[in-house]
Amino acid sequence: MTPPRRRIADIGEHRWLRGLLAGLGSVGRMAGVSIGPGDDAAVLAPERRPWVVTTDAQRAGVHFRVGWLSWGGLGRRAFRVAVSDLAAMGAAPRAALLALEVPRRFEVRSLSAFVRGFAAEGRRHGAALVGGDVSAGPCFGATATLLGVLRGRAVTRGGARPGDAVFVTGRLGAAAWAVRERRAGRRARLPLPPVRLEAGVALAPVASAMLDVSDGLLQDVTHLCRASGVGAVLELDRLPVIPACRRLGRSGRLLAATGGEDYELLFTVPRAGLPRLARARLGCAITRIGTIVPGRRVELVDAEGRLVRCRRAGFDHFT
Amino acid sequence: MTPPRRRIADIGEHRWLRGLLAGLGSVGRMAGVSIGPGDDAAVLAPERRPWVVTTDAQRAGVHFRVGWLSWGGLGRRAFRVAVSDLAAMGAAPRAALLALEVPRRFEVRSLSAFVRGFAAEGRRHGAALVGGDVSAGPCFGATATLLGVLRGRAVTRGGARPGDAVFVTGRLGAAAWAVRERRAGRRARLPLPPVRLEAGVALAPVASAMLDVSDGLLQDVTHLCRASGVGAVLELDRLPVIPACRRLGRSGRLLAATGGEDYELLFTVPRAGLPRLARARLGCAITRIGTIVPGRRVELVDAEGRLVRCRRAGFDHFT
Repeated sequence: MTPPRRRIADIGEHRWLRGLLAGLGSVGRMAGVSIGPGDDAAVLAPERRPWVVTTDAQRAGVHFRVGWLSWGGLGRRAFRVAVSDLAAMGAAPRAALLALEVPRRFEVRSLSAFVRGFAAEGRRHGAALVGGDVSAGPCFGATATLLGVLRGRAVTRGGARPGDAVFVTGRLGAAAWAVRERRAGRRARLPLPPVRLEAGVALAPVASAMLDVSDGLLQDVTHLCRASGVGAVLELDRLPVIPACRRLGRSGRLLAATGGEDYELLFTVPRAGLPRLARARLGCAITRIGTIVPGRRVELVDAEGRLVRCRRAGFDHFT
Repeated sequence: MTPPRRRIADIGEHRWLRGLLAGLGSVGRMAGVSIGPGDDAAVLAPERRPWVVTTDAQRAGVHFRVGWLSWGGLGRRAFRVAVSDLAAMGAAPRAALLALEVPRRFEVRSLSAFVRGFAAEGRRHGAALVGGDVSAGPCFGATATLLGVLRGRAVTRGGARPGDAVFVTGRLGAAAWAVRERRAGRRARLPLPPVRLEAGVALAPVASAMLDVSDGLLQDVTHLCRASGVGAVLELDRLPVIPACRRLGRSGRLLAATGGEDYELLFTVPRAGLPRLARARLGCAITRIGTIVPGRRVELVDAEGRLVRCRRAGFDHFT
């Protein structure tokens, strides 16, 4: 029996790691993994396709609050947030590493639950947990590095051209809504981000540009436009927002357009690609939300074409 | 002119990143990098050789103190610490990612100096900075992920057999000494870790087991023995320690044996491999410090063969 409140400082990193790795068992023994976790570094067999690699930190008090999900759920969430960047390139995940910052009085059970949640979610989507790092620190944080392989071409943020249609997968606003409700003292579960890997791979041959919506739709459209050297006009009323946001009217739609943490795919498609897009098997709904235009400005308009002003396009960690 | 004390909160992550990436210029345009930093993920061209991947966190107040090196020096140090794990597998670095945790009032100049130091050191050793992450947090920290390729076979910790000779590269104790001096209020520069990539690649065909000395020699020997299912006898007087530790006598040698942060390579060689070891071009000195024995115990003995006791084998973040 595990004592219910054993802390990491009671057993130390090395003993905790040995127990964890024994429990994870076959996670490291997936296809393509020559040497899994537990050595200085992991070894992955060569692949004929290009590798895609991304890193992403999730920190308690910054990216999430403790209690908004179980520790296992937070581990699953950390994987999903990171894998979203692979989806946005059109890649399929193969391997993951997890660097943990852990306060000394952190419970062993919570820590193990986090890693098991991360590893299980990775395995489900084809990525073996092949390595990581554990160190002490003032607040819990996890930096995930994911490696994937490209099936075809990579889709960057920089390929959008005037006339391209702008689309987004799924629905926006679920995370922003939950955070707003929580902050107002009401109960709301932080949603697990969607996994858009199937859509990412299917969109790779069709999309002219693609990224995942993490900072807020408006800001991420701005990132895409800046990289492509173009502008965009988005229609507020076309945004696919969750019912709770829709019921709030314009303020709910603006919350969904700027709240961030949606992890849906934002992508552009040239007119000539629209028939192929209609035939693509994406595994999720998509919605056309606007059009790429010449220039540099990103404008949000209402149903009558009038400019909608909003105070803030999305999230920046520091401003 | 840059204002001398501009904070990251004054300009935000996105503006800082755009300026930094423009300044880094060709870093991402190294051989094998198809898409460098600035998109959702980086893309690396396929390699015929296996990939080796490792992740390592360095945090202010945990792994180093602010002021022990310049910020550029701390960036260089972060790369060297991480690349040591690639050296210990016998791999050559190709690409790096850097996830930064940055307090809101952190100076832009220090942050940029850290990243430039990391990137310059990477470039010098063949690794392009291909991606990263920036987020707010209570204290400065950097999690580096390095990708390398194997030239030949990978050397794990698990291949040592009774009768193998135990060696270590370079000298031990420089970091432990500097930390001790600093804590006593005396001036001492934190040394930059050595880079043992040449030795790692040259040792790969000869060594039966290898790891880098990060937690302290005695503890790292214990890790190697545990992974190999063997024991070891080490001779305290044979340890290659820095002159300052040697002058202190036994207590100085014990400090060097347990202090950690040496980033030298610890490796074992079967008797049959010793002639080949003598011919290997390592780019650094090596010293035989002991022998692998049957059993599980790691013993430190003096010149007369008497057991030397020490309170602590090395570093654990939590105990």
